[in-house]
Amino acid sequence: MNAPTPVTHTAELVARRSVGQSLEAPFYVSDEFFDLDIEAVFARSWLFVATEAELPEPGDYVTVTVGPYSVILVRDDDEEVRAFHNVCRHRGARILNEERGSVGNIVCGYHHWTYGVDGRLRYAESQAPDFDRSCFGLRSVHARTVTGLVFICLAERPPADFDEVARRVEPYIAPHNLPHAKVAKQIDLVERGNWKLTMENNRECYHCAGHPELQRCYFPLYNFTAANVPPALLPTYERFLKADADARASYEALGLPYAPIEELDDRPTGFRIQREPLDLAGESFTEDGTAAVKPLLADFPTARLGHLGLHLQPNAWFHFAADHAVTFSVIPLASDRTLVRTTWLVHADAEEGVDYDLDALTRVWAVTNEQDATFVARAHQGISSPAYVPGPYSPSESQVEDFVNWYITRLRAHLERRGRQRRGRQR
Amino acid sequence: MNAPTPVTHTAELVARRSVGQSLEAPFYVSDEFFDLDIEAVFARSWLFVATEAELPEPGDYVTVTVGPYSVILVRDDDEEVRAFHNVCRHRGARILNEERGSVGNIVCGYHHWTYGVDGRLRYAESQAPDFDRSCFGLRSVHARTVTGLVFICLAERPPADFDEVARRVEPYIAPHNLPHAKVAKQIDLVERGNWKLTMENNRECYHCAGHPELQRCYFPLYNFTAANVPPALLPTYERFLKADADARASYEALGLPYAPIEELDDRPTGFRIQREPLDLAGESFTEDGTAAVKPLLADFPTARLGHLGLHLQPNAWFHFAADHAVTFSVIPLASDRTLVRTTWLVHADAEEGVDYDLDALTRVWAVTNEQDATFVARAHQGISSPAYVPGPYSPSESQVEDFVNWYITRLRAHLERRGRQRRGRQR
Amino acid sequence: MNAPTPVTHTAELVARRSVGQSLEAPFYVSDEFFDLDIEAVFARSWLFVATEAELPEPGDYVTVTVGPYSVILVRDDDEEVRAFHNVCRHRGARILNEERGSVGNIVCGYHHWTYGVDGRLRYAESQAPDFDRSCFGLRSVHARTVTGLVFICLAERPPADFDEVARRVEPYIAPHNLPHAKVAKQIDLVERGNWKLTMENNRECYHCAGHPELQRCYFPLYNFTAANVPPALLPTYERFLKADADARASYEALGLPYAPIEELDDRPTGFRIQREPLDLAGESFTEDGTAAVKPLLADFPTARLGHLGLHLQPNAWFHFAADHAVTFSVIPLASDRTLVRTTWLVHADAEEGVDYDLDALTRVWAVTNEQDATFVARAHQGISSPAYVPGPYSPSESQVEDFVNWYITRLRAHLERRGRQRRGRQR
Repeated sequence: MNAPTPVTHTAELVARRSVGQSLEAPFYVSDEFFDLDIEAVFARSWLFVATEAELPEPGDYVTVTVGPYSVILVRDDDEEVRAFHNVCRHRGARILNEERGSVGNIVCGYHHWTYGVDGRLRYAESQAPDFDRSCFGLRSVHARTVTGLVFICLAERPPADFDEVARRVEPYIAPHNLPHAKVAKQIDLVERGNWKLTMENNRECYHCAGHPELQRCYFPLYNFTAANVPPALLPTYERFLKADADARASYEALGLPYAPIEELDDRPTGFRIQREPLDLAGESFTEDGTAAVKPLLADFPTARLGHLGLHLQPNAWFHFAADHAVTFSVIPLASDRTLVRTTWLVHADAEEGVDYDLDALTRVWAVTNEQDATFVARAHQGISSPAYVPGPYSPSESQVEDFVNWYITRLRAHLERRGRQRRGRQR
Repeated sequence: MNAPTPVTHTAELVARRSVGQSLEAPFYVSDEFFDLDIEAVFARSWLFVATEAELPEPGDYVTVTVGPYSVILVRDDDEEVRAFHNVCRHRGARILNEERGSVGNIVCGYHHWTYGVDGRLRYAESQAPDFDRSCFGLRSVHARTVTGLVFICLAERPPADFDEVARRVEPYIAPHNLPHAKVAKQIDLVERGNWKLTMENNRECYHCAGHPELQRCYFPLYNFTAANVPPALLPTYERFLKADADARASYEALGLPYAPIEELDDRPTGFRIQREPLDLAGESFTEDGTAAVKPLLADFPTARLGHLGLHLQPNAWFHFAADHAVTFSVIPLASDRTLVRTTWLVHADAEEGVDYDLDALTRVWAVTNEQDATFVARAHQGISSPAYVPGPYSPSESQVEDFVNWYITRLRAHLERRGRQRRGRQR
Repeated sequence: MNAPTPVTHTAELVARRSVGQSLEAPFYVSDEFFDLDIEAVFARSWLFVATEAELPEPGDYVTVTVGPYSVILVRDDDEEVRAFHNVCRHRGARILNEERGSVGNIVCGYHHWTYGVDGRLRYAESQAPDFDRSCFGLRSVHARTVTGLVFICLAERPPADFDEVARRVEPYIAPHNLPHAKVAKQIDLVERGNWKLTMENNRECYHCAGHPELQRCYFPLYNFTAANVPPALLPTYERFLKADADARASYEALGLPYAPIEELDDRPTGFRIQREPLDLAGESFTEDGTAAVKPLLADFPTARLGHLGLHLQPNAWFHFAADHAVTFSVIPLASDRTLVRTTWLVHADAEEGVDYDLDALTRVWAVTNEQDATFVARAHQGISSPAYVPGPYSPSESQVEDFVNWYITRLRAHLERRGRQRRGRQR
């Protein structure tokens, strides 16, 4: 039924979560869990929200929405990316109303309160003599970049483990040269389902028969081993073994780190990274597997180096090929609506129509995203029925389970923290 | 005001319901009562949801939505109509996403879990060795047919009195030969009001001056007797008496049951049935009262046999004429939105454009439905004002009052049952 | 967060309101405060809802919506404007479904219950002999007119101070001759923000740089004095001083009251009135300040008399020039949606296209309203962020603060009254 899920019930559902199977329905469909997810996960974690390529010059800004928050990302005069709440300190108006642009100062259009790109209030007309501008700077949001990727954290004290994660993934990403990238295309897709269904869907390839375009270049062997490869996939598996051996040799020769690191469920910043070969020409996510862009983005002597995959919890995944990179940022909009922002990055010198065909570059992931949106919508619809009961994860869905474990750990930590705070106040 | 109606308040409103007048506003406009209506009425009663003519062959299916539920109706290999929750037992995806179609197996499009039309899980890829398929069949829903009409019940234990009701109405309906019918047309109309307003509107003809097309063929004498027929209607009444005498003679001669049975408010499956004459040519719901379809649907030697009317609570009514039948199924979508699905059935051999003109067949009830939708919307709008107070039923609205009595009895029974369960748990 | 704001929390937020700064977010964004505002403010105050020019003849009616209420304004056979709830006393249907029109009787379209324009039930078909029509008249709403402006009050006992306010503003308005006006145009604009943001926005000209069209004819000196006029505005200020001296001389010569009365925050019917000069030609709200309509509406020998401004809490403001009048009525639709209805009145004899150009007449306020709608939407968006904190009012926003003081006083009075009622019941 659409019966309400009171807060106490929320805690009970978290407490009784059963390992090995999908979550109970309220986690996905109730407004209470949506609010809790924003509070416990999205307002406390480092979130991937943009690429540095979107803000090349001082004064360039991008506004991003995270649940009820609107945040300004702006490159300051020292060329650092900074983040501020997009809320005027006067009477609260939203200040920047475009998705992106370039400014000298950040000026509220309502009463012209004027802030520097460092967030300080520089000018406010018609104030009393005792008005102290220094008290009314924009409220800041933690921001940092990792080799061209921009992250924010809405919490006062961000998770401390992100430094370590950044240090470990940077050697993998750095050769992909994102600081010299430009945006070839960005697509915002609103999926009709809970954000966790979007992330779960991305953590398994059990459904990849539904992605014929992706399957052509992507070895569909996710989570199979020599011991359990189905007979129908044996030729593919043989081809994979050869490609994998070739790739490892190349990676070693070039000094590219490739070994998988998988720490999805035992730290605040759950992540997974691995470099792997691709099928066909083995260069890129295209119909025949050849590179889609002529000047490679990565500092590689050859394009045939497969792809580097990175998953980052709570809200992102990435595919880095030699010729381009694709980033995916997931933002919850409501319990049943989720924004997936996909950004294709190519070398800054590559010219559309000359050095790459935009459709050839973007087609595989654009159609894959649409297919995934259909899967997510159907999952959300089914789970909305009172007849839904959690079902079992198969062995090939172990990373889904890792994600869910991680998520439940985040909620438990948050509920405990909240309980401690309340008890503290009562003393 | 839009003030909240807490659960305790809900019970209080049920308890203090005043006989002889319309219900208080929250029954129609609050989300609490919408949820309670689904739980206490729609999840516990037998619901009319389709006709057998919609699933002629094994593998044919129809998906129906009832509040938050999605249900698959499918004809199995033994030609029985069965019903299952449209929710995959793996991770809960909605399985069938079309309104109707034909399948060999019921296959979830997400990870290809494959169920037979008997609901058993036949195949699920990539499972651990101890995975037991027999534990993961589709969850079934009670389904049964009554001479061509398909009913489901979402409760574990359906109301026991439906057998008796079916036994008593079958002799009336059987001659109409629904098992040899086909669907000529189906129209889904979303009314902008609470489902009870839709049902109440159908239980009286006090408003029938608003149905000029229907009034031509339908004697507008609903609930009048010789003693109180208004002078303006006396000629109509005389005409009715003659038509009624003729009709009774025909019914007797043909052995057709026609006497009214009216048990609307004293049983779980409230119903009313009666065979009556029609005005004009007396054959059908058409502009001149003549049959709209050449091969009659009913096993009748003549078309001039009026209509058989059946009301079934909570959610259906029917009109059976000699040449066609019309079924109406009412499904609540939200406190202020209700689906009315109208289906016109004709003989399977009748050919559109040759044996019947579709517009002539459907026009009277199609326009009548639109007019009713306007009445229901206005009722809902007015009741949404804090200035609304319940008003008195006139004598000609006795069946509205019966429906409301029945409804309140359903809620009281449910609240008592729930109370007993809670007390039981506390012991 | 979108966390719920329970009723107790509502009272706490009212109690802890901090003077000198904007309200906390829930006042603007929560459904609880929306309901409380309807109950405590809109259901208890006199509301400006129409002009008499909209109902010139007996039987003419206008329907207006106030929150969940629908109200019929109708001119009765004695030429008085009366108001009734637009809810049939039978089963609650909305009776009149058009925005305006003319009727002999008020007839419900559902079952044809027929009321006189005095609200009495004149006819109801098919009733039992003991049915007493006199018990089922339309529920009345307090209505009164003030020199051509129509006000209603939904409370049983309207605020008593309105008589005094009417007595004091009538001498200012009367010369504008509204009883001889006709409607030249009416525009309904739905602003995407809370109604209080609409009213606050109207109580200050700190944002008027955003109104270039209005600024041309309207001296942008709102709340500046000789002591604090910014240097850039000195030439304007000089021009204003001259215009003001001229205007005062004219007002005195013509016996027109012009002195400001400002009683915004210390009475139930907060108001402010003042006659002031306009810039440019000084006659009207047009691009060059000249009158837009040839036969003046006001009984003035010259058009160069500036404008009379009236603010009335909770929901209206007005600008009266010599040639026309503009009325603004504010109606909350939801916590984040507000209707602003703007009506331009001209002399009944003025002919469109001959005596006035409709676009020239309406342009300044039409574009100003659109600009204000943008400001209100941005304010609402910003305040919806959890990062919003109340900010300080500048000296030039003193009337905003007065409005907020008045509003908080209304809520406190209502909560106290409700508390007394509850305690009374418990005794």
